[in-house]
Amino acid sequence: MANSSFRNKEITPMDEDFSRWYTDVILKTEMVDYAPVKGFMVIRPYGYAIWEMLQAAFDKEFKKTGHQNMYFPLLIPESYLNKEKEHVEGFAPEVAWVTHGGGQELAERLAIRPTSETIICSMYAKWLNSYRDLPFLYNQWANVVRWEKTTRPFLRTSEFLWQEGHTVHETFDEAQAETMQMIGIYKDVVENFLAIPVMVGQKSEKEKFAGAHATYTIEAMMHDGQALQSGTSHNLSDHFAKAFGIKFLGRDNVEQFAFTTSWGVSTRLIGGLIMVHGDDNGLRLPPKAAPIQAIVIPVSQDKEGVIDAANVIKSKAERIARVAIDASTDTSAGWKFSQYEMKGIPVRIEVGPKDLAEGSCVLVRRDTGEKKSVSISDVDIDLEKLLDEIQTNMFQQAKERLASQTSIVDGGMGQLQETLSSKPGFILTGWCGDIACEDAVKEKSGASLRCIPFDTNGYKADTCVCCGKPAKHTVIFARAY
Amino acid sequence: MANSSFRNKEITPMDEDFSRWYTDVILKTEMVDYAPVKGFMVIRPYGYAIWEMLQAAFDKEFKKTGHQNMYFPLLIPESYLNKEKEHVEGFAPEVAWVTHGGGQELAERLAIRPTSETIICSMYAKWLNSYRDLPFLYNQWANVVRWEKTTRPFLRTSEFLWQEGHTVHETFDEAQAETMQMIGIYKDVVENFLAIPVMVGQKSEKEKFAGAHATYTIEAMMHDGQALQSGTSHNLSDHFAKAFGIKFLGRDNVEQFAFTTSWGVSTRLIGGLIMVHGDDNGLRLPPKAAPIQAIVIPVSQDKEGVIDAANVIKSKAERIARVAIDASTDTSAGWKFSQYEMKGIPVRIEVGPKDLAEGSCVLVRRDTGEKKSVSISDVDIDLEKLLDEIQTNMFQQAKERLASQTSIVDGGMGQLQETLSSKPGFILTGWCGDIACEDAVKEKSGASLRCIPFDTNGYKADTCVCCGKPAKHTVIFARAY
Repeated sequence: MANSSFRNKEITPMDEDFSRWYTDVILKTEMVDYAPVKGFMVIRPYGYAIWEMLQAAFDKEFKKTGHQNMYFPLLIPESYLNKEKEHVEGFAPEVAWVTHGGGQELAERLAIRPTSETIICSMYAKWLNSYRDLPFLYNQWANVVRWEKTTRPFLRTSEFLWQEGHTVHETFDEAQAETMQMIGIYKDVVENFLAIPVMVGQKSEKEKFAGAHATYTIEAMMHDGQALQSGTSHNLSDHFAKAFGIKFLGRDNVEQFAFTTSWGVSTRLIGGLIMVHGDDNGLRLPPKAAPIQAIVIPVSQDKEGVIDAANVIKSKAERIARVAIDASTDTSAGWKFSQYEMKGIPVRIEVGPKDLAEGSCVLVRRDTGEKKSVSISDVDIDLEKLLDEIQTNMFQQAKERLASQTSIVDGGMGQLQETLSSKPGFILTGWCGDIACEDAVKEKSGASLRCIPFDTNGYKADTCVCCGKPAKHTVIFARAY
Repeated sequence: MANSSFRNKEITPMDEDFSRWYTDVILKTEMVDYAPVKGFMVIRPYGYAIWEMLQAAFDKEFKKTGHQNMYFPLLIPESYLNKEKEHVEGFAPEVAWVTHGGGQELAERLAIRPTSETIICSMYAKWLNSYRDLPFLYNQWANVVRWEKTTRPFLRTSEFLWQEGHTVHETFDEAQAETMQMIGIYKDVVENFLAIPVMVGQKSEKEKFAGAHATYTIEAMMHDGQALQSGTSHNLSDHFAKAFGIKFLGRDNVEQFAFTTSWGVSTRLIGGLIMVHGDDNGLRLPPKAAPIQAIVIPVSQDKEGVIDAANVIKSKAERIARVAIDASTDTSAGWKFSQYEMKGIPVRIEVGPKDLAEGSCVLVRRDTGEKKSVSISDVDIDLEKLLDEIQTNMFQQAKERLASQTSIVDGGMGQLQETLSSKPGFILTGWCGDIACEDAVKEKSGASLRCIPFDTNGYKADTCVCCGKPAKHTVIFARAY
């Protein structure tokens, strides 16, 4: 990348091999490591710190909208999983089964939760009596296991960390409002905190959550143009309520079934963060999601006053940001520049004898590579402003890429296939609503129907990209992680 | 209890049946519920909110002392568990085994982590190269599974939530210093935040962690005089380092084994909180651990100005505390008093027409039942002071009980047995150091050796309570949860 100080040779260039680039970045920055069991990951401190901040950002919004956290058991009896037909068909193939405990074979095998609707609904059925008890607005932060064949750290792993909200409502409309509220919160946090722009829309019948009435999704675009489903919110209507007997005495004194929702985001978002913002020199973290927002590096630190100045800068900057200093003597300043660049730290603060003579230091932006000399006495003020600018700029950059790599296809399958290979990204096109066409597009192009977006920027497709019949929906097709 | 407004009839009196009292309290206050799988629990919002605050209190101290959080996989290959001999013997009987995943039988069965030393040590062996990399100061917040025969929510469950710190050091002494630092942090947080006084000491060989060189513990005393092991910190010496090959190139340029520690506290502490502070009317929560610190209840709320005043009080009080208001009209003020008393909310704020006429409201302490009329305009100042007083008083009350129910036994087994039945609690006595005597005491009295306390308040035992030989240690025996 032209703006950066060095070309980091530890990392495979994106254009050469995007998949290797990703692996290099996550391993070299020590965000994650492979676990002994295939498909599982170890989230190392640098990756976990991002997860902790992201959790806090979501949790705050959940609580602000009246949700409380709870914790349900890891293990679910097989009979519970079997109660909702579509649900079990969707999840059974991915389940890890516990068959022995305490030295004995179990009478009934237990699923490690792939998601918790079944166990949570069974408890809700017990707790709910009257409309006065409603709504139930609960969430849990937990680990889940889904046995995956092809895995990649953060993006798709057999165990991941997530939150799953599970709510109960008096009416379908209230459940629908909750479902929409939560997909809205997901969009806001992902855009404002992670600086990742997303398309919001509804999933097709084929792609919706197993057992849901309707699924809504936020879809992000990775650097290689592929989509990443980044969060989903499901209106479960009364499907699970009927399967688990979640009933209440209504305002009319008649017993009736409740309406439920569920919604989740996971550690997969960290994969998105890496693949949306990263470049050939490694990570680029938006300031809000950066465990260290600025790194102070003394240059020619053996010269009088340099270390002292670096420490002054650190303590000033710490007032407004998460700041670290690297005054180690066993590596060069240049090596440090490249390391912290790779780690994606938004701002590097350099101070050497020349700067010192002028009472200044240099702020270097990770997002653009720009350098700016600022007065040491005002470094906190300048840094605060710069971090805001970087956050905004990174979102803007990603937004422009998403827009520029979104193509309208109105010329049928040939054009769709050509566009996907010449300009990988989102394809905005028409769909007749028939699952056969959805399947055919997937088979021929590898692109799946990501969503029926709420906002198509005014575009309305006329015909189905596959069969040419009148389009029922304007949709996004894309290859996806 | 004499001081309280009502005798809560939903709860079995402690003296009648302590175990039923506990069950009544945890269920009626909606802290927890039984899960479909025996031995597992659902932590409901009121219980989980306490866990969230407790996590934050510990996490702050861990980070202050340089620890970072990570996340390791839930599933551990059987071969890893088998690497440390004492460890596997200690844990294998309690393991839940995953034998099938993704529709297939697994080549090697996988343990759901009962604790994570084995998997974490295997990764540490990979990451560690030089003494320059040390120390590793890491922690994880996670769920673990230990298949238990007899379970009780919070106190002993087949799945529980906890944190497990795992550190690596250059020398034995540094590992020992870390082990002691962490048991010190446990004592501080448990005493200052939960207001639970503890005895700190070392575990006997029989009671130490499977695979440890030495285990340190904090032991709390429940209302019925039984002990609750409330947190442990282990110096693992080089046992796990040798089993997993955690080696580094030392300052002397020679490859050597590292020294490791581990330490943990769990949701069990919530059980301790309940059983230390509760009374016949339910929970009593120390203000720092109370999700709601004050509840505002308008009395005769149909009278002019009452609801308005209650809202003013709430918004004033909210500046310094977590406050809720209950202005519902379908239950009486008296019923509300009893409910919030049961929930253990530290302060009730009553306001009715009479108070209003004087511009005052009434603060009622949950810990003592005392009432005090204060000016509405200063309610925040008075409440803040009162919450501090309650926190201090509850710790003091518990400390006095611990002292008064600790007995010195210097007259052998007869006296020990007699004391345990006449005044259940901690027995401070002598022990020769022989495991046969430790076993005999347990068998005859049901009391286990809780610890060799650091502080015996000046008492030093002469002879072993069991065999009469010279005492090697002054120890605490008690029946325990």
